[in-house]
Amino acid sequence: MTRTIRAPRGTTLTCANWQIEAAYRMIQNNLDPDVAFDPDNLIVYGGRGRAARNWECFDAILATLRRLKPDETLLVQSGKPVAVFRTHPDAPRVLLANSNLVPAWATQANFDRWETAGLTMYGQMTAGSWIYIGTQGILQGTYETFGALARSAGWGTLRGKLVVTAGLGEMGGAQPLAVTLNEGVLIAVEIDRWRAERRLRLRQVDRLSDDLEEAMTWAEEARAAGKPLSIALIGNASEVLPDMLRRGVTPDVATDQTSAHDVRYGYIPAGLSLAEAAALRERDPAEYDRRAMASMAEHVRVLLEWQRRGCIVFDYGNNLRQRAFDAGVSDAFSYPGFVPAYIRPLFCEGKGPFRWVALSGDPEDIYVTDRAISELFPHDEHLGRWLRLARDYVAFQGLPARICWLGYGERAKAGLLLNDLVASGAVKAPIVIGRDHLDAGSVASPNRETEGMRDGSDAIADWPLLNALINAVGGATWVSIHHGGGVGIGYSIHAGQVIVADGTPEAARRIERVLTTDPGMGVVRHADAGYPEAIDFARRHGIDMPMLAP
Amino acid sequence: MTRTIRAPRGTTLTCANWQIEAAYRMIQNNLDPDVAFDPDNLIVYGGRGRAARNWECFDAILATLRRLKPDETLLVQSGKPVAVFRTHPDAPRVLLANSNLVPAWATQANFDRWETAGLTMYGQMTAGSWIYIGTQGILQGTYETFGALARSAGWGTLRGKLVVTAGLGEMGGAQPLAVTLNEGVLIAVEIDRWRAERRLRLRQVDRLSDDLEEAMTWAEEARAAGKPLSIALIGNASEVLPDMLRRGVTPDVATDQTSAHDVRYGYIPAGLSLAEAAALRERDPAEYDRRAMASMAEHVRVLLEWQRRGCIVFDYGNNLRQRAFDAGVSDAFSYPGFVPAYIRPLFCEGKGPFRWVALSGDPEDIYVTDRAISELFPHDEHLGRWLRLARDYVAFQGLPARICWLGYGERAKAGLLLNDLVASGAVKAPIVIGRDHLDAGSVASPNRETEGMRDGSDAIADWPLLNALINAVGGATWVSIHHGGGVGIGYSIHAGQVIVADGTPEAARRIERVLTTDPGMGVVRHADAGYPEAIDFARRHGIDMPMLAP
Ligand SMILES: NC(=O)c1ccc[n+]([C@@H]2O[C@H](COP(=O)([O-])OP(=O)(O)OC[C@H]3O[C@@H](n4cnc5c(N)ncnc54)[C@H](O)[C@@H]3O)[C@@H](O)[C@H]2O)c1
Ligand SMILES: NC(=O)c1ccc[n+]([C@@H]2O[C@H](COP(=O)([O-])OP(=O)(O)OC[C@H]3O[C@@H](n4cnc5c(N)ncnc54)[C@H](O)[C@@H]3O)[C@@H](O)[C@H]2O)c1
Repeated sequence: MTRTIRAPRGTTLTCANWQIEAAYRMIQNNLDPDVAFDPDNLIVYGGRGRAARNWECFDAILATLRRLKPDETLLVQSGKPVAVFRTHPDAPRVLLANSNLVPAWATQANFDRWETAGLTMYGQMTAGSWIYIGTQGILQGTYETFGALARSAGWGTLRGKLVVTAGLGEMGGAQPLAVTLNEGVLIAVEIDRWRAERRLRLRQVDRLSDDLEEAMTWAEEARAAGKPLSIALIGNASEVLPDMLRRGVTPDVATDQTSAHDVRYGYIPAGLSLAEAAALRERDPAEYDRRAMASMAEHVRVLLEWQRRGCIVFDYGNNLRQRAFDAGVSDAFSYPGFVPAYIRPLFCEGKGPFRWVALSGDPEDIYVTDRAISELFPHDEHLGRWLRLARDYVAFQGLPARICWLGYGERAKAGLLLNDLVASGAVKAPIVIGRDHLDAGSVASPNRETEGMRDGSDAIADWPLLNALINAVGGATWVSIHHGGGVGIGYSIHAGQVIVADGTPEAARRIERVLTTDPGMGVVRHADAGYPEAIDFARRHGIDMPMLAP
Repeated sequence: MTRTIRAPRGTTLTCANWQIEAAYRMIQNNLDPDVAFDPDNLIVYGGRGRAARNWECFDAILATLRRLKPDETLLVQSGKPVAVFRTHPDAPRVLLANSNLVPAWATQANFDRWETAGLTMYGQMTAGSWIYIGTQGILQGTYETFGALARSAGWGTLRGKLVVTAGLGEMGGAQPLAVTLNEGVLIAVEIDRWRAERRLRLRQVDRLSDDLEEAMTWAEEARAAGKPLSIALIGNASEVLPDMLRRGVTPDVATDQTSAHDVRYGYIPAGLSLAEAAALRERDPAEYDRRAMASMAEHVRVLLEWQRRGCIVFDYGNNLRQRAFDAGVSDAFSYPGFVPAYIRPLFCEGKGPFRWVALSGDPEDIYVTDRAISELFPHDEHLGRWLRLARDYVAFQGLPARICWLGYGERAKAGLLLNDLVASGAVKAPIVIGRDHLDAGSVASPNRETEGMRDGSDAIADWPLLNALINAVGGATWVSIHHGGGVGIGYSIHAGQVIVADGTPEAARRIERVLTTDPGMGVVRHADAGYPEAIDFARRHGIDMPMLAP
């Protein structure tokens, strides 16, 4: 079936009120062809992260929202609308649970079987919870990671620093802009010319070169001048990086976003063109794997040597360390993953990918919020820079939206401000406020967000469930509990919340509650795990933790 | 540490209001030495189902409840009080998540490790959610199973019917009374004389015999006279049952509650005394297993032959069928498990183990509610009989309580009545209303409660999560999400809710909502799975299911 879905715009309500209208528009926005990866199959992003189980369910969700009363709540079970119950006006209008399985049965094979049988759906993170806003999420996540790195290194920004990475794919393609927005210089090695040229065309990378000498010259000039610059260098990381090392180059920062998590399809072995690699993969897969593993080992050996020479090296969640380790590099895990290294300190303050969407559909509404948020936090330079740059570099996809990492205290303040902008008419229609499930207090994912927790509590999954419960109780407009987002079936449990600023005093009360408890859970989760920054933050902000010594 | 915990009684509040006081009293009641299995270790029941992670956490929970304000909510993470957030007066006062793990890590070995490290706690079902009320729960569950069986057989009651079973252990010991309360005649084969005599002493079984001839004579007399009678017959089920078969005996109903789930410790092989069995277990465990498996096969062969001769045979959740199957009885699964056979039709109407507790501590309050509930449902004979019999046979443990299976519609009616009794002063203090997690819409447990779901959705775990969310939103006083209750780590996800009837109109509104959504989820879950009874029930009661054809 081919249907084109776009969220309604403007100020005319289809549903009984703006809370319900928001859900109605956002599920459709998730499937906007400008937003979704494969809207014909209801796939929003992340492999097969869907917005609804099938078209029949999608239509039933819309029909139910159109008739939903202001004191009713719709329950959605893995993309299927299963019940409507009377609740009350301050309650969530929609409650969702996606992809959850009893643990002993929680394998990909079982999931696939039950998905085929029509019993479940993969919700990913923001796909099944109707708050995906396109690629700016990835961009800011990467921007924040580099920003946090620069601050933790004592540099403030990446100005005058050289970052070397590889991989300009779907996620990795955000690296050049993320580095230049942090004022740094980047060389990204990419084996696939088409991918690199695409980034150039989309103006997501500044220059392209086939020649290391040339790329290094550009990079050195920019570095010396303190100018931001991003360069795509065509080549194989496992050949180019050793070459750089031999020439005595030591970057300031190094990481990698090849698809090392998938040995046979994600990493091209040294010495082969793309076409040769494809042929070998076909002809002798085992030999392909052997060569890819050897190349990854070589790749990591350079990263380790750079680390010894003072470069800041971190893993970007692609499992490259594991590959090298398995190929005999016994010290492959000597450099940290990005969450423990850079994101966790933010999580300790409840900071994560906060976002909002203008239901009017008018980009001007987002610009109004950009200005208001900048003025609300006049001393946060990093935030201010992001908002200015986002305005210049981020193309809206679907309903205009903004992402912006804010923490405990800040979120409630920002939410109330957004509600005021609606109340005063400064924006034309209500604003939807949400976040990713990758957030401070909403996810248990031992291979990513909760890797290496201080107290070993990586796999303890009570936290996202408490997060969902407290946000639902506080009056978030929709709340979701998912399994398997980000890292696949079996590997995570996480929760989402979305709340609508419709300009009413009731909404203000709900916003204050939910935008306090939600990041609050992040601080609490990390303070409970013993992070001194979180404990300190909780104390300073008077967060009530019964077993935290005062 | 040895401490004696008992819930406060009477009408004087320790906490800010009765909602908070209820949680304060119920956690302590769970650890009352008359209620809990091993209170010194905070273990309530079910192996190691705890009420709090450790004594320090227990004390912190009580201290926090004492200071909790009427618009605050306490969050408990696997028995540890981790945060207090401001919510609102209609919100739950406590939210709990117990034992939850990310699925790929959800093994018993991991759990044990993290429990030892102090990171989690096993909550079982009502232990970690503070609504365990002692053994009357098991008694009524068994009573309901036999009652449902009698009704589904078209008999009305078990009057004049002979039930044969084995095992008079902790659960199985409820069988005699459950059968006689349903007016039937029972022979329970038990190998351990001490266990049988204990049941006799506790007046949980009427007579004891060593001789099949004698037991059968008693049974035939009672059966002919239509009189209830329960007989403990000392012997090994795998010897006695074949003997009965040879003599041409065919009971009307047969089941089993030996501990067949545990081959080496739960089932005594034929031909051995208890002492000989213990010696063999020690000397040659493999030989023990072989003999136990062979005996179980023999045991099941008799059950299958009885089934062919018209006897109603069902499995009581002890995995006996699997053992026999593994020992070569290829048709072992020819008879059903108890949930699909008898409990699921009740679940289809939202019926499950509803219960309430008198916070006053006065048994008279429960008798008042017994009478009021009987009068509320004057035409429900089965319920009326249970309430009369419970009064005579059930000894209160801790705060006086009553269990009583009620379904959708009935629960809200009963809850409002209980609230009225509090309002009018007919009872001396507020009433706490709860249920087991083993309920119609609150559990995913493919080896027990969701075994053999019509649509194959046994392991889909979205339902208990939606159940917890909607009950929390409606204003249950405490809500919990657990993993691993009943069947162990990895094998279940389930939710609990408890709501306090304090006699106020606000409580009445919350009660009506929650006692509608909670059993409502049971009806919806089963209607969605395609059970015609549930679909029909949902239609007749106007339950709003968007994708159910009207
Ligand atoms: N950090 C995070 O939050 C996060 C989130 C999701 C995914 N990831 C991981 O990041 C990795 C990249 O994700 P993506 O979506 O960009 O993947 P992708 O498959 O779209 O892109 C990978 C790129 O690497 C290139 N490449 C492969 N082998 C190479 C080699 N030897 N030398 C140079 N280039 C090579 C490919 O041509 C491709 O362009 C994945 O492993 C993914 O799991 C990280
Ligand atoms: N239906 C349910 O809801 C439910 C709930 C929990 C447990 N169970 C299952 O029911 C079973 C019984 O539970 P329990 O708590 O009573 O166990 P238990 O171990 O306390 O009692 C088992 C009894 O069986 C007797 N026995 C063992 N072998 C025998 C034999 N060959 N012949 C005669 N008697 C024999 C033992 O002496 C003991 O008294 C377990 O497998 C349990 O998992 C069912």
